[in-house]
Amino acid sequence: MTLAIQIDHIRAAAGRLAGVAHRTPVLTSDTANQRTGAQLFFKAEHLQRMGAFKFRGAYNALAQFTADQRRAGVIAFSSGNHAQATALSARLLGMPSVIVMPQDAPPAKLAATRAYQEGQPGSEVVLYDRYTEDREAIGRRIAEQRGMTLIPPYDHPQVMAGQGTAALELLEDVPDLDTLLVCVGGGGLIAGSAVAAHALRPGIEVWGVEPEAGNDTQQSLALGRIVHIETPATIADGAQTQHSGTLTFPVIQALVRGVLTVSDAQLIRTMRFFAERMKQVVEPTGCLGAAAVLEGAAGAPEWRGRRIGVVLSGGNVDLARYGAWLAA
Amino acid sequence: MTLAIQIDHIRAAAGRLAGVAHRTPVLTSDTANQRTGAQLFFKAEHLQRMGAFKFRGAYNALAQFTADQRRAGVIAFSSGNHAQATALSARLLGMPSVIVMPQDAPPAKLAATRAYQEGQPGSEVVLYDRYTEDREAIGRRIAEQRGMTLIPPYDHPQVMAGQGTAALELLEDVPDLDTLLVCVGGGGLIAGSAVAAHALRPGIEVWGVEPEAGNDTQQSLALGRIVHIETPATIADGAQTQHSGTLTFPVIQALVRGVLTVSDAQLIRTMRFFAERMKQVVEPTGCLGAAAVLEGAAGAPEWRGRRIGVVLSGGNVDLARYGAWLAA
Repeated sequence: MTLAIQIDHIRAAAGRLAGVAHRTPVLTSDTANQRTGAQLFFKAEHLQRMGAFKFRGAYNALAQFTADQRRAGVIAFSSGNHAQATALSARLLGMPSVIVMPQDAPPAKLAATRAYQEGQPGSEVVLYDRYTEDREAIGRRIAEQRGMTLIPPYDHPQVMAGQGTAALELLEDVPDLDTLLVCVGGGGLIAGSAVAAHALRPGIEVWGVEPEAGNDTQQSLALGRIVHIETPATIADGAQTQHSGTLTFPVIQALVRGVLTVSDAQLIRTMRFFAERMKQVVEPTGCLGAAAVLEGAAGAPEWRGRRIGVVLSGGNVDLARYGAWLAA
Repeated sequence: MTLAIQIDHIRAAAGRLAGVAHRTPVLTSDTANQRTGAQLFFKAEHLQRMGAFKFRGAYNALAQFTADQRRAGVIAFSSGNHAQATALSARLLGMPSVIVMPQDAPPAKLAATRAYQEGQPGSEVVLYDRYTEDREAIGRRIAEQRGMTLIPPYDHPQVMAGQGTAALELLEDVPDLDTLLVCVGGGGLIAGSAVAAHALRPGIEVWGVEPEAGNDTQQSLALGRIVHIETPATIADGAQTQHSGTLTFPVIQALVRGVLTVSDAQLIRTMRFFAERMKQVVEPTGCLGAAAVLEGAAGAPEWRGRRIGVVLSGGNVDLARYGAWLAA
């Protein structure tokens, strides 16, 4: 079976993103290295435009719209960061955007999404209840009514290719990694990352990390088919997905060594580590990969002695909740 | 009158610090620029070793100890960051350190100071009450008893020269600044910064920023002599100094355009800005310079159109207090 994306798609995405996305830095910490016995290299996507890697995938997809598609605009549904990414990318490319967001999304993400739409006629945020309504159905209906192109948050080749550019940059900057840790929601980031990592560094071990409460991809790998779960209750709102994608899952099956899980308590301790020792604000989902090595994860391999790349996927947190986690 | 330090002292300090201190990055923010109408360049000393610029001055001083001085070790008194800076520098140079700290210093700073002393025989932390006891007297007594060399937190030429290397690097990286904003406690950082900035960029305006509650340097400039105040009640614990130094004040008089003040509420809003928009943890004292332009300060000049360097002096905060400020 041919995978949905190849390294050439990721390199082409990198070309489209050059001068538009930030080439984010790679951060290190002596304390983290001492604590784990490994050498850790954190790809700082919380310092990406709009605060998360999601900008890469959204922009890469929207940049390939035809003139007709641009005129009608884009629609997206998202638990947060894909919303902001689409809204910002659409404005940069001069097209309308409709963003379908859960009504309980962090207020900061709602506000930021609307701010990114400002000055772009035809743009709006549409809210839904994520426990009772089907966001995909809502998105498809509006797309049909307004002739808009739906860009899903992960199950799309151009989105996956865009996300892969983060790992591409990391492997360019630190070529001799032997392990890569990536958070898993719907699988767009880890699919793109795995393709990039294996192309630049054959033999590298790519591990996914999910919240304990939402380990659908771990289950799916065990069963060999895409498992659907209820919307999981976890502070990692970017990983509150119910299932992998039909395009992302085959890539994960082919190129990912395994999926580990960490608890919300471990995510909070990892957020505190980043704030206290590295002075960085990383959101819960962004801490998944780091928590697996800093805090330990059930079933994890021996990390000591490894050179490990870790994607910090984002830093968009509601300050009230974040402050409470730090103060606890 | 000859000033206590010249640019040559700062360049020599930079040589001693090469490969030991971090050359911290210069951060920018489109949002900050849009909000202020200025171009802001943040020198990220919260990403310095031990989390603050203080490492530069302490290491520069300790690196010049004689063999006898190294054997007996160093003593320092500090409201926090100079403590950690001295403890770390002493361990790196293999000498004992005694740190005299206020008993109400943030717990994270006490713990970090003791952690930096670990494995170095003869090292300890001595606590005192900053509202009833005189830390300088305590420090001098121990120094005499144990033959230790006292390194004060700011009023010392080698400390001042070390602190000036942060501005030296900033002006090397961004040569065409017209303004530099620096927080003011005892004046070591701003004195070193002013000497470096005027040497590299003649005509640059260097402004100091103090907390409203502790504007001793502003008063001193107005009266033309060093004014002593009560220990000010402010969240900017690094600026809870009672007076400028006899070495720092003449430099400030000669090279600093003026001192502005900001309120604790403005510091909290600035901390929230750095966390939310730039994903950076900056301590209250570290926000003084940024608050003067992001929040506005009484008596400030027109910032619009300027290219402004801002020293973010540190990021060491007690997470419980910091979390409460963010959540408020």
